[in-house]
Amino acid sequence: MTVELISVGTEILLGNIVNTNASFLAEKCAALGMANYYQISVGDNEERLSGVINTALSRSDIIILTGGLGPTEDDLTKEVTAKVLKRRLVEDAGSRSRIEEYFKGRERKDITENNWKQALIIEGCQVVENNNGTAPGLIVKTEEGKIIILMPGPPGEMIPMFEESIVPYLKTLSENVLYSEMVKICGIGESKAETMIKDMIDSQTNPTIAPYAKNGEVHLRVTALAATKEEGMLLTAPVVAELKKRFGSHIYTTDEKVTIEEAVINLLTKFNLTVSTAESCSGGLLAGRLVNVSGASAVFEEGFITYSNKAKMKYLGVSESTLKKYGAVSSETAKEMAAGAAKAAGSLAALSVTGIAGPEGGTESKPVGLVYIGCYFDGKIEVREFHFKGNRQKVREYTVISALDFLRTSLVNAYGEAIENNR
Amino acid sequence: MTVELISVGTEILLGNIVNTNASFLAEKCAALGMANYYQISVGDNEERLSGVINTALSRSDIIILTGGLGPTEDDLTKEVTAKVLKRRLVEDAGSRSRIEEYFKGRERKDITENNWKQALIIEGCQVVENNNGTAPGLIVKTEEGKIIILMPGPPGEMIPMFEESIVPYLKTLSENVLYSEMVKICGIGESKAETMIKDMIDSQTNPTIAPYAKNGEVHLRVTALAATKEEGMLLTAPVVAELKKRFGSHIYTTDEKVTIEEAVINLLTKFNLTVSTAESCSGGLLAGRLVNVSGASAVFEEGFITYSNKAKMKYLGVSESTLKKYGAVSSETAKEMAAGAAKAAGSLAALSVTGIAGPEGGTESKPVGLVYIGCYFDGKIEVREFHFKGNRQKVREYTVISALDFLRTSLVNAYGEAIENNR
Repeated sequence: MTVELISVGTEILLGNIVNTNASFLAEKCAALGMANYYQISVGDNEERLSGVINTALSRSDIIILTGGLGPTEDDLTKEVTAKVLKRRLVEDAGSRSRIEEYFKGRERKDITENNWKQALIIEGCQVVENNNGTAPGLIVKTEEGKIIILMPGPPGEMIPMFEESIVPYLKTLSENVLYSEMVKICGIGESKAETMIKDMIDSQTNPTIAPYAKNGEVHLRVTALAATKEEGMLLTAPVVAELKKRFGSHIYTTDEKVTIEEAVINLLTKFNLTVSTAESCSGGLLAGRLVNVSGASAVFEEGFITYSNKAKMKYLGVSESTLKKYGAVSSETAKEMAAGAAKAAGSLAALSVTGIAGPEGGTESKPVGLVYIGCYFDGKIEVREFHFKGNRQKVREYTVISALDFLRTSLVNAYGEAIENNR
Repeated sequence: MTVELISVGTEILLGNIVNTNASFLAEKCAALGMANYYQISVGDNEERLSGVINTALSRSDIIILTGGLGPTEDDLTKEVTAKVLKRRLVEDAGSRSRIEEYFKGRERKDITENNWKQALIIEGCQVVENNNGTAPGLIVKTEEGKIIILMPGPPGEMIPMFEESIVPYLKTLSENVLYSEMVKICGIGESKAETMIKDMIDSQTNPTIAPYAKNGEVHLRVTALAATKEEGMLLTAPVVAELKKRFGSHIYTTDEKVTIEEAVINLLTKFNLTVSTAESCSGGLLAGRLVNVSGASAVFEEGFITYSNKAKMKYLGVSESTLKKYGAVSSETAKEMAAGAAKAAGSLAALSVTGIAGPEGGTESKPVGLVYIGCYFDGKIEVREFHFKGNRQKVREYTVISALDFLRTSLVNAYGEAIENNR
């Protein structure tokens, strides 16, 4: 079964809002086993909207329209849909009394005339209650057996309506489920990752593997079409096992929702460790990512942002001679920063970052993008040298991901087997 | 001139990512005076993609495609566009050497075969350099005079490419000039800001005012259609002057490119000040935003991430009795943190943050979203109490913006007139 998403609203075409409705609905529809091949955004314009609806009717089984159901004259979705289907608009008594009810309980008691427009429905449709606003949703079945679903645009109305009423309805339509697992990889580039599983991708039928590059990470989605969730799990299991074999410890999670920073915090928590950070060019972003995880406070107590040499000496005990001899951006300084952070904070692990994020500050021997990351753990300090490409923001983003992955792999190497069962 | 946006990528259709490229491009195109009537998302599928491109060619003047230019087999945008236009793909020597160059500086020295796919271009096109990745952009003019622009999908590559190369190109296409000024406001909510200028918006013809809500800020774009840039400037000037009168020091810049953190760094630089930060719940994000500005090192030397009470005492000299009596999340602690950070770092200004970002940790008297921000400047410390709504990430984002604006307004109050000329 195919579904097409049509978002109606001039505010989308002007870039005033980001269309989060489309990604929400796309993800939900995928989980319901429906294939989404087209997402369209179009304005509140009769000609263009009816064109888009007609095209969708010609190529998709289910059409979900969001937006344009409001009380203003701009709002045309219902009217245009009715016209396309050659049906009349009729007043729905239930919707009218719900609108009366809605305004009764609220401060704005003045129901303007145009509000009653929202009580009009397309002849022969199924009305879907809106518990968070005045515009009801509509489900219309065409004579050709296609389904058109109309929902209000505001996510605060659309999302609960979809989850409470539309999902149960859609489930009655489909026979199969789409079950998917996510394998998240760090430390391997997108093209290399794909080369490593080219044979698997080339020969795939069901399940399929889809790679996604995400800011220095690669996510592989393994999706199976099956009669039940259990059958889907049985189909994906051997593929996920094979991916684990090929990517080994580069896989930081197979949980859809876990981020790299959560994976690190989870490991630290599991093994009763604490971490501190000492950052120069990343200026707090690394700590910020760790603290992004709710509950990080149990394993992360202190972070140092030591931009100046003075601060590196004062808080981290980096020696003046090291800074003079090797410079602030050097393997030696990174090493002393990591050791110093662990010592000052009394933490069992520490990460340090020193580098040149640019656009200024680069030299021939130390170009923009050169970053040293130090990792202290278990009494040992290791330093890695990176050469990142891109603008300041990109260099810093890659730096943070690489630092998180550095600590993660150090922990995995130390606690290998205990972790394996968890990944 | 009409522009149609086509986002290519299965990850959009699966709802794995929110399509922020479309809203970014829509806003920029609107600012360039181009009408956007359709936005399409489609997968990496030859048949459907070519159908979408053909439809766009039949109804729009300019087509901007993003995504699907990567090295993997999924990536088809260039190949399909060439096929639709009946043109060949040829290797571009410049792009090939740029890819070689890109990989030379990196750790992953293994350029896999599929990377060379990115050096192929559509015959007769104009190549657009990608300074943040390996896939170049392409501008293709069709025989019918339509323009197709191909850009990579990752925003970190697409956004700089669009701003550096595509905007100047698009400007050469239109006869009239769309001149716009941006007025960026902090510390006033979107609906309040709109109410404050409702009369101006209701009566506007040329120039127009368009409000955009952006993560705790409101941006007002004033746009005039004119024969020349100079005429455009004359048209917008009185409107911008009126906005300055109404919003006063809430306006932090009228420069399109200046962010709130840049505005703060610029003020500090201008008045030879230095700043330090002491963060608890924001965990380095505030420092990270400041350090985001190239050249921040001249005014920002040290930052403290003091999650634990121990660290607050050790580095910032917060007294144990204050922590006991008022708690870590209190006006008193925020005050001592700001004073302590300034003292420890020897900086002339300091910002402190302590609060409850959630989702855990809230109580009845100190609910999730309660944040105290302290600002030390000129020997005085002021503390503000905030109650932010939303999830952990949103609370932290609003916290950072509010802290930056707190320091900014303190500086503006102290140096009022000297700054006025600059804003």
